[in-house]
Amino acid sequence: MKPQISVITLGVDDLDRSLRFYRDGLGLPTKGIIGTQFKGNDTSPAGAVALFELRSGPLLCLYPRSELAKDAHLKAGAPSATEFSIGQLVRSRDEVDTMLEAAAAAGAVIPEQAHERPWGIYSGYFQDPDGHLWEIIWNPAMPG
Amino acid sequence: MKPQISVITLGVDDLDRSLRFYRDGLGLPTKGIIGTQFKGNDTSPAGAVALFELRSGPLLCLYPRSELAKDAHLKAGAPSATEFSIGQLVRSRDEVDTMLEAAAAAGAVIPEQAHERPWGIYSGYFQDPDGHLWEIIWNPAMPG
Repeated sequence: MKPQISVITLGVDDLDRSLRFYRDGLGLPTKGIIGTQFKGNDTSPAGAVALFELRSGPLLCLYPRSELAKDAHLKAGAPSATEFSIGQLVRSRDEVDTMLEAAAAAGAVIPEQAHERPWGIYSGYFQDPDGHLWEIIWNPAMPG
Repeated sequence: MKPQISVITLGVDDLDRSLRFYRDGLGLPTKGIIGTQFKGNDTSPAGAVALFELRSGPLLCLYPRSELAKDAHLKAGAPSATEFSIGQLVRSRDEVDTMLEAAAAAGAVIPEQAHERPWGIYSGYFQDPDGHLWEIIWNPAMPG
């Protein structure tokens, strides 16, 4: 296998709410909700998603948990914040603080204050409207 | 914000088991478990992780759910497979099948067979030992 991560899809409860958070709150570029022509039904997933092209790296995709469950032939699980986190490296300690403040202003939950960690980084987390974790990281050994 | 995804951290129940799956099963390059000198305790997270540098894009990081919970000051949630999926674009329909077969041979669960989806892709999912979803995608409109 030659692995590569092309897309990160976040399961969400309310596509409109998440779109507002990422587009209007965080300012991420998007064409809004696309794929609404794929309606789905009780067993087939609907196709409506919101895609965000980031500065580099994978696409960010928002997709209802219910539809992700149908798409993968799984039962929808309960929200759980400790399944994963998305880490973003930034260029300074101040940028960590600034980004967390911006996320909080957009309605994100900040479960803890940013701080130095024993492994040499300064970081803090925010949670999107579904509880999904983003860690904003300044690593002096790995500039963002 | 200038967002960018630098790291995807997967919460796992058993770091050794997940390392074996990704390193030995899928063949992803890694230095193995690092950060074991950061022991942690009941409230401070341990630092042991396994990192994988992929072909391009973000680092993949494996980290125990229990430690991610402590690191983010959250209660560890129950495993839930519909919180997110990681999508990998590949170059052909055959490559989707080949990668899913390789994942199954490595012990992955295949919750459904790959198939054409209404939005013009051919894809299928596998689940890692913690149930985390990977979708292997051939999109004729977006070559991998």
